[in-house]
Amino acid sequence: MAGPIRHKALINVDMGEGYGNWAIGPDDDLLPFIDHANIACGFHASDPLIMMETVRNCIKHGVKIGAHPGLPDLQGFGRREMKLSADELTAITVYQVGALKGFLDREGVALHHVKPHGMLYGMCCRDYETAKAVFLGIPKGVPVFGLAGTYMEQAAKDLGIEFIAEFYADVKYDADGKVVVERKKGGWKTEDVHTRVTQQLETCTAPAIDGSTCSFPINDYRVSICCHSDVPGCLNVVKTTREAVDAFNKKYFPDP
Amino acid sequence: MAGPIRHKALINVDMGEGYGNWAIGPDDDLLPFIDHANIACGFHASDPLIMMETVRNCIKHGVKIGAHPGLPDLQGFGRREMKLSADELTAITVYQVGALKGFLDREGVALHHVKPHGMLYGMCCRDYETAKAVFLGIPKGVPVFGLAGTYMEQAAKDLGIEFIAEFYADVKYDADGKVVVERKKGGWKTEDVHTRVTQQLETCTAPAIDGSTCSFPINDYRVSICCHSDVPGCLNVVKTTREAVDAFNKKYFPDP
Amino acid sequence: MAGPIRHKALINVDMGEGYGNWAIGPDDDLLPFIDHANIACGFHASDPLIMMETVRNCIKHGVKIGAHPGLPDLQGFGRREMKLSADELTAITVYQVGALKGFLDREGVALHHVKPHGMLYGMCCRDYETAKAVFLGIPKGVPVFGLAGTYMEQAAKDLGIEFIAEFYADVKYDADGKVVVERKKGGWKTEDVHTRVTQQLETCTAPAIDGSTCSFPINDYRVSICCHSDVPGCLNVVKTTREAVDAFNKKYFPDP
Amino acid sequence: MAGPIRHKALINVDMGEGYGNWAIGPDDDLLPFIDHANIACGFHASDPLIMMETVRNCIKHGVKIGAHPGLPDLQGFGRREMKLSADELTAITVYQVGALKGFLDREGVALHHVKPHGMLYGMCCRDYETAKAVFLGIPKGVPVFGLAGTYMEQAAKDLGIEFIAEFYADVKYDADGKVVVERKKGGWKTEDVHTRVTQQLETCTAPAIDGSTCSFPINDYRVSICCHSDVPGCLNVVKTTREAVDAFNKKYFPDP
Repeated sequence: MAGPIRHKALINVDMGEGYGNWAIGPDDDLLPFIDHANIACGFHASDPLIMMETVRNCIKHGVKIGAHPGLPDLQGFGRREMKLSADELTAITVYQVGALKGFLDREGVALHHVKPHGMLYGMCCRDYETAKAVFLGIPKGVPVFGLAGTYMEQAAKDLGIEFIAEFYADVKYDADGKVVVERKKGGWKTEDVHTRVTQQLETCTAPAIDGSTCSFPINDYRVSICCHSDVPGCLNVVKTTREAVDAFNKKYFPDP
Repeated sequence: MAGPIRHKALINVDMGEGYGNWAIGPDDDLLPFIDHANIACGFHASDPLIMMETVRNCIKHGVKIGAHPGLPDLQGFGRREMKLSADELTAITVYQVGALKGFLDREGVALHHVKPHGMLYGMCCRDYETAKAVFLGIPKGVPVFGLAGTYMEQAAKDLGIEFIAEFYADVKYDADGKVVVERKKGGWKTEDVHTRVTQQLETCTAPAIDGSTCSFPINDYRVSICCHSDVPGCLNVVKTTREAVDAFNKKYFPDP
Repeated sequence: MAGPIRHKALINVDMGEGYGNWAIGPDDDLLPFIDHANIACGFHASDPLIMMETVRNCIKHGVKIGAHPGLPDLQGFGRREMKLSADELTAITVYQVGALKGFLDREGVALHHVKPHGMLYGMCCRDYETAKAVFLGIPKGVPVFGLAGTYMEQAAKDLGIEFIAEFYADVKYDADGKVVVERKKGGWKTEDVHTRVTQQLETCTAPAIDGSTCSFPINDYRVSICCHSDVPGCLNVVKTTREAVDAFNKKYFPDP
Repeated sequence: MAGPIRHKALINVDMGEGYGNWAIGPDDDLLPFIDHANIACGFHASDPLIMMETVRNCIKHGVKIGAHPGLPDLQGFGRREMKLSADELTAITVYQVGALKGFLDREGVALHHVKPHGMLYGMCCRDYETAKAVFLGIPKGVPVFGLAGTYMEQAAKDLGIEFIAEFYADVKYDADGKVVVERKKGGWKTEDVHTRVTQQLETCTAPAIDGSTCSFPINDYRVSICCHSDVPGCLNVVKTTREAVDAFNKKYFPDP
């Protein structure tokens, strides 16, 4: 067992994943409890108006903003696998990150990170060429959020991009520590979330869907815990994660 | 009659207006003859891959790059009027300009200007609130291309945005000097283009569709002549415009 | 005052107005209380999977199915005005109605009616050419739902299409009896809904937003009351409308 | 070697594969030379207006009309692999075929066949469950065009759908006789096309990309030769195929 992570833990949530008149998560309710927002960029969800409003709301709550580019598939919410060429993967990343940065530039706020969405995230985990092609679209100096021990980590390293490791509060892992992408997600019990988050922070391991324990090679990486805003009961998941994270931070990184 | 324009004339053309496997103009053939490219940003035409390639091609030919945001209507090529709220107009401009800027930042090239596309351009000419809402989405310090004597000029002035006046080599004017937007365009005779361009540069007037002569209050504005890449015979239109522009520049702004 | 309508009143609700992972109304909760469903056809909302499921759910509840074609604008939920040519209007109607009919044919169920959605409905009310172009896309023998006293009625008459008049339980009227299209709608008090529906059925009049009373030339038309599934508290609106309609039908059309 | 096919050969071409202002093939030039049109249905290409016009043009030339449903991916022209659930595959087929049938019903013309497009065709060839899910969306009594010896044939047989075998005049085969899907296609020499078509009709074999000869189990199936309208020089390909087909038909099925 690898022991606790070596930095204060933080929390990220996907934000702005509505489209036109359709809403998904209770974004406004979650903002007070999180550190990082991954803002959808219009390909798997969101549109310019939602992005403009979401950026402003994040700033109001002091939440740092990352871009959350996805596959070009609104109907499938970016959760259907699509085969794109390497150049297409780079181009859709540049496009989406640039679009979000347009709103940030206007507000005088920096882009904090990039985190691929849904199936694109899963494809980056599983395939080195995909991860590399996507990461080639990230602006210089901007870190990427990803899953340690996957090709995301490897590609970030090879391209000189800072890697911030993620744990998941509300997504299942397989035995290899990879996330299981589901087009529609189920709810979680808060006690399970608390246990799950604390185990990950304290030991860099988690229960896998086959009953085994998977482990994550976090090493010295900074860590952000991901919660989702489209899960039923997500407000409780986020609040519970906040409690678990605050307890962990207080124990291991007490203010002087 | 106002006399000749007070700066060297330049030429702009819309570029990258294909979509996926569909192409429109012979972009590569036109690049050697133009000064400014207005690159489509994915709402009325283009996609991330085409934008990435078009940006590179423009750089290769030393052509300055502007963003060409349009209405969110690929099927209508941005030429069907749509009523958007002021916030939506601002947001679609920020989004599209930001997306293009993503590609420019990557190549280390500055955004030269913004020019609204098609019906959005026409709506900005005719309606002050529309022009203002769109222009609020333009990054600070970036000039806008537009039609002098319309609300585009007024809104640019009120918002402190540099205004660059356009003449059209291949679009018809009405008696008030406003462009007539057509979803499908016709061809032009090269001699007509030469006469038309030269008349505009020398006198700041043009023939209108009702047989009258319209005039443009160009004053001290810099001027860029617009040619279109989706017009049959556009290569000849562009070459002819280049000749007319070079002749004008040589006559009025001879190199020392 | 025109007195009560001359047929049993019925109730229609828009159904299947989600898109991909996004849902809107509590369709399943509403189905037991309604007579007619207007199923979205993929242009302003819905997708093939949602349509397939919605058709099956309607059949299960014995609800008659109509097509609900909209403007090609998912982002604006078909509530942003767009200018389409007459041929385009006809073609988008044929396409959407045909797509829905594909699902109905498969289940061996007839198409009951066509009702244009949102802004397209409003445009049909206000403009004869629009109504005519849309109605030219309706299959022979299929009735259209619309607002009496508008160009919808006129165009249906001229084209030999059966016209079924609508009252609205939850949408505001202007002084001329035209519906006021809002992109986001407010909630209603159930007592207001009951009064409003009963007034319309008993007198063919309704309160207008300017405080006056508007009246509807229902004559001998059949009537269906429209409730919306995307209004907060819509289940209560529908239940209340059902009560008002049942009370009216019992009073004026008692079973022998 | 299997010997010549047992019915008169016919020719099919994809039609209406433009989108909005973008055109692809010279449809009008090809119509006089073909028997069957596969009309795009709006998911990989086409839109309602193009479909309406294409249907009318086909009728004018006496060309039989089939539906050509594709993956929901305009940007990728239906040539990027996407993973859809079985229900989604059925639903997108019902939707697209229904939409086209809307235009045919209006003209009083029957739907002649269904042929999946591009990558969806390839996926049906390679995967039985995909072929079955797609074919479940085909209206009763309508034949499907496909590649003999693949899962398309098997699924058609299992579902009681008439199977019409295709040969390709202008697409490459691999050693197993499967078509090689390319997002952008190259041109063909007319003499190669003539030889290729004649070989396929006379012997039910064709040259494969690895230099071997692949063979097709055509048995007693009716056959339609496919030519593409988006290949450079497609008019010559189609004319040459017509000549080869007419020569074959005259030799083996002379009119009495």
